[in-house]
Amino acid sequence: MSDSPVYNSDTIIALATPSGIGAIGVIRLSGPDAIALVNEVFGGKDLSIQHTHTIHFGTIRDGNLIIDEVLVSLFIGPKSYTRENVVEISTHGSAFIIESIIKLLIRKGARPANPGEFTLRAFLNGQLDLSQAEAVADLIASNSQASHQVAMQQMRGGFSGELHHLRDQLIHFAAMIELELDFGEEDVEFANREDLKGLIYQIQRILHRLIQSFEQGNVMKNGVPVVIAGKPNVGKSTLLNALLNEERAIVSEIAGTTRDTVEDEMIIGGLRFRFIDTAGIRETVDIIEAKGVERTHEKIKQAKLIIYLVDPEQDVKEIQSQVNYLEQLSIPFLTVVNKKDLVNDDFIVQLEGVNLKSEVGSRKSEVGSQKSDDRTSDLKPQTSDLRTQSPNLIFISAREKQGIDFLKQEILRKVNLHNINTDDVLISNIRHLEALQKTEESLNRVLVNIDNPITSDFLASDIKQALYYLGEITGQVTTDDLLETIFSKFCIGK
Amino acid sequence: MSDSPVYNSDTIIALATPSGIGAIGVIRLSGPDAIALVNEVFGGKDLSIQHTHTIHFGTIRDGNLIIDEVLVSLFIGPKSYTRENVVEISTHGSAFIIESIIKLLIRKGARPANPGEFTLRAFLNGQLDLSQAEAVADLIASNSQASHQVAMQQMRGGFSGELHHLRDQLIHFAAMIELELDFGEEDVEFANREDLKGLIYQIQRILHRLIQSFEQGNVMKNGVPVVIAGKPNVGKSTLLNALLNEERAIVSEIAGTTRDTVEDEMIIGGLRFRFIDTAGIRETVDIIEAKGVERTHEKIKQAKLIIYLVDPEQDVKEIQSQVNYLEQLSIPFLTVVNKKDLVNDDFIVQLEGVNLKSEVGSRKSEVGSQKSDDRTSDLKPQTSDLRTQSPNLIFISAREKQGIDFLKQEILRKVNLHNINTDDVLISNIRHLEALQKTEESLNRVLVNIDNPITSDFLASDIKQALYYLGEITGQVTTDDLLETIFSKFCIGK
Repeated sequence: MSDSPVYNSDTIIALATPSGIGAIGVIRLSGPDAIALVNEVFGGKDLSIQHTHTIHFGTIRDGNLIIDEVLVSLFIGPKSYTRENVVEISTHGSAFIIESIIKLLIRKGARPANPGEFTLRAFLNGQLDLSQAEAVADLIASNSQASHQVAMQQMRGGFSGELHHLRDQLIHFAAMIELELDFGEEDVEFANREDLKGLIYQIQRILHRLIQSFEQGNVMKNGVPVVIAGKPNVGKSTLLNALLNEERAIVSEIAGTTRDTVEDEMIIGGLRFRFIDTAGIRETVDIIEAKGVERTHEKIKQAKLIIYLVDPEQDVKEIQSQVNYLEQLSIPFLTVVNKKDLVNDDFIVQLEGVNLKSEVGSRKSEVGSQKSDDRTSDLKPQTSDLRTQSPNLIFISAREKQGIDFLKQEILRKVNLHNINTDDVLISNIRHLEALQKTEESLNRVLVNIDNPITSDFLASDIKQALYYLGEITGQVTTDDLLETIFSKFCIGK
Repeated sequence: MSDSPVYNSDTIIALATPSGIGAIGVIRLSGPDAIALVNEVFGGKDLSIQHTHTIHFGTIRDGNLIIDEVLVSLFIGPKSYTRENVVEISTHGSAFIIESIIKLLIRKGARPANPGEFTLRAFLNGQLDLSQAEAVADLIASNSQASHQVAMQQMRGGFSGELHHLRDQLIHFAAMIELELDFGEEDVEFANREDLKGLIYQIQRILHRLIQSFEQGNVMKNGVPVVIAGKPNVGKSTLLNALLNEERAIVSEIAGTTRDTVEDEMIIGGLRFRFIDTAGIRETVDIIEAKGVERTHEKIKQAKLIIYLVDPEQDVKEIQSQVNYLEQLSIPFLTVVNKKDLVNDDFIVQLEGVNLKSEVGSRKSEVGSQKSDDRTSDLKPQTSDLRTQSPNLIFISAREKQGIDFLKQEILRKVNLHNINTDDVLISNIRHLEALQKTEESLNRVLVNIDNPITSDFLASDIKQALYYLGEITGQVTTDDLLETIFSKFCIGK
């Protein structure tokens, strides 16, 4: 962290906490005059001579009028979020009080902050790199353990550290090759081609890993799109409700932290699952049978997981044909038999004939691992061993909420995120993915041209392009447009 | 402030900021273990050896998992809001993060706080008296300058100080009179009757002032109920919109602090005005003409102000009769002539004959004080001097938004709150009013019986009753029911 000069000379102000009724609200100021401005309206100690990271009780006064009794927290730059002087005023949570204090301080010379401007300043003043700054917004928006983990990893400096270092080395080579060009016709070689290749391979390995991680990172950040497919009346919406209802009870466990209820989303094992077009499901449109229709086709293809729900009274040949169709899609799917009380031995025997081996995948069927449902007792013994749960054929009763816990376990297993090392850095941002892919392309061209002396012009420009894209991720290369795009998505006060 | 022992031995936790999307959230803990509990999950300095009123940057960890990078503020009891150890954790404003941290600390031994429990502890630990604690809730709910001022005054210890002192003196007399009773038949007098009378007169004066202040205090806290009355099509709803629209622009001036828009309320000069039954107004029901109907009658009686809107084409005799009716109600009213462009000299001359002198009240008509409308230019000279604005006859054009500012000025003047000394303590709480009235009644009985030796039994019990009611205001006398009633109205986290 360098002691770079502060970028902005004015002092910004915003409410940092959500608006609405609460016990307290926090107003945040950042800029060279933050402490002096608050000191002007503060009844209490002289704030200008206090230490950083201290809290002071007093009043905010507009002339003789006391607006509130507050706590003022001081952060003296560069030991603050923005590296500027920062003051946080903790007020009683009345919109009237908050508005009055903000208006008062604007009158004294503060300026209302733009969305994300505090974090923008943190970036411009060298506190965070750009990918870290973006992670702050992701962190605030995170609503599951997985999305939180991806954002936290990125905010704590995850991949930009690695990239910084490699980028610096690449800059060195770029300079050497530029130098060669200056010598024109003479056959000098300042940049050792083998060393350069070695560096590029090293960078490519990291790029490859990061690019590969996008699919997982994206799923962790944005959730897993799921389709529940099956014949009409097979119980799709009952299953959806059974899955959702269990979750609801958990979500609002702690008063005061209730989230906006999102109808058709749920969290299993810390991962968010989004149900696609559940309106369609409720209308019991059979997505699979309508496979000729392009629109339905497209919907299914968005899914990262398909739950194929089967009725025990359904024709087994039909099931076979639909399983064949699903296999072609190369999207993971689970075959789930609903209404398990109606299952008879005939159905099981016939179903044995159905080719479900692709369901088993590389794993052995794990009959022994079946966990009994927490909520409903499956006390009566199964009438047939064949009806025992296995990952390639799951028996449930959506209405009686039987087998739901096992199904959830298998849903998680299908998505296959449980093996992720929590220390691995994952890309979750499309902007980063694109920059990484462009870097990779540029470096691939470098490798093609590297041994050909005729093309060293291209060599230099391709390396520069790679540097450009790498720099875009960390923010070493920025444009106003890029910053505008990134920070306008922030909430005000951050 | 006494160093009374802390009331509760457990440590409570709650989100102190509103739920919703914001840059930060603040989680608050209070209790003997607050610092130790947070220290257990804090990655950073050892919090147990830090000074009070200091802020510490670090992580909150659940085992190896980092939940967030946070700022932790320490308040070591008794130098805190509750006089217990208090910790505030400032997190990124994600519901997931906040929920995770609260759950983690509950697992470590904290207990979810009940509504108002932090303030309840502040009261029980002697930091605030009961009327101050109640003012905290009022302060949070305050949504106008007036309601804010009443709550702030009360929170800062306003009237309980006075009452405390007088109650202590009264206790002394109660003890003396009890003593007299112990001596039974003997004719001793420990309590000087003249001194007692003097004290009671002194208390009565204060009680009287406080009881009298309720009407103003209540209006400042809850707003002024207003009725707009007049014939159908006279422009009542146009006027309402003209009044409301001007306000809207001001309310949402600062992004991030927008309040819930309340349809038919507006703030003039810091005071909230509530329009009664504006649905009725929109249906252009003529409230005054329907005066025979009991329901309409009752509505008008709720008003603290009536705006009587007149059409220049209306029969002047009719106006006279309605003004007569309004005068009987002894509710302040303003006679407002709408559609002022249609006013002709005939109408003015006829109106001169109408007895409007009660409108002038004790003030002179203030023609000179007319302020021109800020928004619309009344540039063309008035065609008649008679049409000049005066407080007893106001000319407006609701549609053209002319005269609205002058009307607002007069509305404020009518409510007559502009002369209130901002240092005066006002009662705004019905509970306080009732307790004060009961105190007054008890003391009145004391005065009746004071010179009669036969009734000294009653004397003692009446004084005790007065003490009881006075104590209920300040919280020196409390019951669980009373505390439950008061604090259950608080939001969680306060």
